[in-house]
Amino acid sequence: MTTPATPAYDALAGTWTRMHHFGHLQSMASWDQAANMPPKGNEARAAAMAEMAALLHRMRTDPQLPDQLRRAEQEPLDDLQRANLREMRREWQASNALPESLVQRQQLATSRCEHAWRTQRPANDWAGFVENFKPVLALAREEAALLSEQSGLRKYDALMDRFEPGMRCAQVDRVFGEVRQWLPGLIQQVRETQAADHAARPMIEPVGPFALGDQRALCNLVMQLLGFDFAAGRLDVSTHPFCGGVPEDVRMTTRFREDNFLDSLMGTIHETGHGRYEQNLPRALLGQPVAQARSMALHESQSLSFEMQLGSHPGFVARLAPLVRQAFGEQPAFEAQNLHRLLTRVKPGLIRVDADEVTYPAHVILRYEIERPLIEGEIEVEDVPALWDAKMQELLGLDTRGNYKDGPMQDVHWPESLFGYFPCYSLGAMYAAQWFAAMRLAMPDLDARIGRGDLASVFDWLRDNIWLQGSRWTTDELAQRASGEALNPAHFRAHLEARYLA
Amino acid sequence: MTTPATPAYDALAGTWTRMHHFGHLQSMASWDQAANMPPKGNEARAAAMAEMAALLHRMRTDPQLPDQLRRAEQEPLDDLQRANLREMRREWQASNALPESLVQRQQLATSRCEHAWRTQRPANDWAGFVENFKPVLALAREEAALLSEQSGLRKYDALMDRFEPGMRCAQVDRVFGEVRQWLPGLIQQVRETQAADHAARPMIEPVGPFALGDQRALCNLVMQLLGFDFAAGRLDVSTHPFCGGVPEDVRMTTRFREDNFLDSLMGTIHETGHGRYEQNLPRALLGQPVAQARSMALHESQSLSFEMQLGSHPGFVARLAPLVRQAFGEQPAFEAQNLHRLLTRVKPGLIRVDADEVTYPAHVILRYEIERPLIEGEIEVEDVPALWDAKMQELLGLDTRGNYKDGPMQDVHWPESLFGYFPCYSLGAMYAAQWFAAMRLAMPDLDARIGRGDLASVFDWLRDNIWLQGSRWTTDELAQRASGEALNPAHFRAHLEARYLA
Repeated sequence: MTTPATPAYDALAGTWTRMHHFGHLQSMASWDQAANMPPKGNEARAAAMAEMAALLHRMRTDPQLPDQLRRAEQEPLDDLQRANLREMRREWQASNALPESLVQRQQLATSRCEHAWRTQRPANDWAGFVENFKPVLALAREEAALLSEQSGLRKYDALMDRFEPGMRCAQVDRVFGEVRQWLPGLIQQVRETQAADHAARPMIEPVGPFALGDQRALCNLVMQLLGFDFAAGRLDVSTHPFCGGVPEDVRMTTRFREDNFLDSLMGTIHETGHGRYEQNLPRALLGQPVAQARSMALHESQSLSFEMQLGSHPGFVARLAPLVRQAFGEQPAFEAQNLHRLLTRVKPGLIRVDADEVTYPAHVILRYEIERPLIEGEIEVEDVPALWDAKMQELLGLDTRGNYKDGPMQDVHWPESLFGYFPCYSLGAMYAAQWFAAMRLAMPDLDARIGRGDLASVFDWLRDNIWLQGSRWTTDELAQRASGEALNPAHFRAHLEARYLA
Repeated sequence: MTTPATPAYDALAGTWTRMHHFGHLQSMASWDQAANMPPKGNEARAAAMAEMAALLHRMRTDPQLPDQLRRAEQEPLDDLQRANLREMRREWQASNALPESLVQRQQLATSRCEHAWRTQRPANDWAGFVENFKPVLALAREEAALLSEQSGLRKYDALMDRFEPGMRCAQVDRVFGEVRQWLPGLIQQVRETQAADHAARPMIEPVGPFALGDQRALCNLVMQLLGFDFAAGRLDVSTHPFCGGVPEDVRMTTRFREDNFLDSLMGTIHETGHGRYEQNLPRALLGQPVAQARSMALHESQSLSFEMQLGSHPGFVARLAPLVRQAFGEQPAFEAQNLHRLLTRVKPGLIRVDADEVTYPAHVILRYEIERPLIEGEIEVEDVPALWDAKMQELLGLDTRGNYKDGPMQDVHWPESLFGYFPCYSLGAMYAAQWFAAMRLAMPDLDARIGRGDLASVFDWLRDNIWLQGSRWTTDELAQRASGEALNPAHFRAHLEARYLA
């Protein structure tokens, strides 16, 4: 009997496999809670999930781990194992960075703030919201200070690193600063172009109602077209659409409204991007950190590759149009070119989640420019509304004064203390544009391919360059390998100009 | 700060609450596996559920438990706590009685036998089946010997006690022996009565197809009529109908066939009995053993109270008929009296799960009379077919020679080593008859009440006497309190005579 050459690594891998198994049950319970659970099950479900969260926390804070991590680093590991060990250490640091008491106070404060926000937002009750939000912010600053001390990162970076490992304010400032310079002008130009275009040839709106069963069938069809593996996942309905489950069994949800099918269709295409990333994560070390999705921006780069790069591509919309007609019957609005115009209409608005791809970055930049100084103590909660108004005016030309509910109260992120998350949305859009630029370099006829329904070219590229890479590389390395350069917002600008100004 | 008066009991209760929370996740994953899971999720799900089973096993075999149980017995507990402690000890004994190696060998042997059985049964391959079944039986005998040694019970009793605590061969022999005397004669009489009746007035068969959506709507309607709380449970579809989930969120399943709606309707009524028992278990100590359903026979007494006592009651069928017409349109077959005749048709057959309530006990008695001596080493596997044939002839007048697939190979219980389970089905039918006899004593107009749709009388009685009692009493005590006597099969006989010979 021989001793394994990597006993510490093997022990760690075993622990992570067990956590993966428990996480599977937790994911499914969470999906079920959103998609199936009857209301009276809520209390028991919450208790069961809290018990599992506590167990997973105990496993992640097991006092044996630091020693095992140290010993594993001396063991003869191959490159993949070494990358896995790096990700294990990342997870271990994240789970052990905060004292239990801080975590508990944060859970209490965010839960109270989020719960009250649900009624305060429709009531436009900023004063009431501030009362609950101040403790949330105070605790987030405490968290940021602790994480910053441990990691040597600046405070906001330490929070952002939870979602986007390796991303720093310096890079975000540079990227967003660049976008900030050309975005308002571009929006203006697109608005003028579209106004002239619409005056010459009015858009035709689809006429509902659209039966939910037909919408569902259409979504299933489009997911199939997009390569979603229904033998390893499902589509169901929930109030807030999400992509959950586990790589081996991806649970996507959407929601349907009888008067509008485009929102849920495009939402489903978006989630399908998340879903295919998960379904195609590398199988060799499944359950290990190295086999997980790289980051939130990368995840968003997949959903936006599907929704924006591909889903709103004129060639893809031409394939979509007959399916829409098949689902709901003939309508002038369903003509491919009209459908494409509906999907690419640009209109500055107050609400981030309703924004088109051109105005969306303005919403994110605004939030980043407020939450960074908020976390770092440069401004206070009382300063937020005026800043919001000013930036909304500057970036989108909209007046939002006194309208807190469609202003700084519109997102769940701040009540839930998800500071550092917002940048990922726009970084994802930029990465998506960068992937498609790289694809066009490798396949100069890419647009023609998409136009004739050869989507495999797109999926094969994403699978090989993104999905199957899991967390093997840092995000920068992955971007370098996939596209020859780190994040470069010029591709996003070129994409918008090509699609909206050509 | 005062020390709690019952520290050991409190620690035990905490452990059981944690196990209840983990069991919640396990139940939901199990339900999902049957109702939702796409095929490629199976391996990951199995691994996740095995991980949880291992965790629960570690908790149940925690070396601290015996000492805590001993100390808790000396603490000042109230009656309910003491009953809870009794049930904790029962569970602890069951989980700690067998060496790990035996459990593993059993899992291997049953899994192999059950898996092969799925194809051997349709192929009528008795020889092949015996090869896998012999190790299953050998291990079951080993298990029975171990349990018998520890408990002082005879071997079969030790196995049966896992499903029906307190039930002994002596009582089963007496009860089944009694039924055995009058059952073949009763079946003969009922057959003659029904033959004459049908000759005079032929039954009318329903004409399909019955759209699955309509069947589903009908099942939902009938479940509502039967008081199922849809805010604390759901009905879904699975290959093998079951009632799962947790008391706070009961997950029932059924299956639909387009050519037959009665089977799934009555199956749903059956599962609704299980479901209401679970939904109405006592809330005070929920998650503790004392708040769980009493036993398998008691559970079956609830599903059969719903399906047989109530569901096939002429008064209830008269309420059901208009719902059936509403679901599928008018048909002569849907006239209440015809529907009742369809539901009470008696016909000896080879298959237990297809049997009517009159011939069903014959199937159970036959199995009990074979599996008891099989476990106790009085007969061998090779003796089974001849015994099966002889008893089938004797009890139901049917020739089953050479037909193993519809004979001793028909049930999943033996391949899965569920020896001692079969009696519960018929004990449940007998308890159900006993409950309704007790109700009629308390409410002489019970049948009139049912006829005018006052089902609350039935449900209130079951809730107060069975559901809310959980596992507070032994089964005998519960029966005494509910009906004034321990199990008495005379009520079952009276029920059959009243329904089928009156």
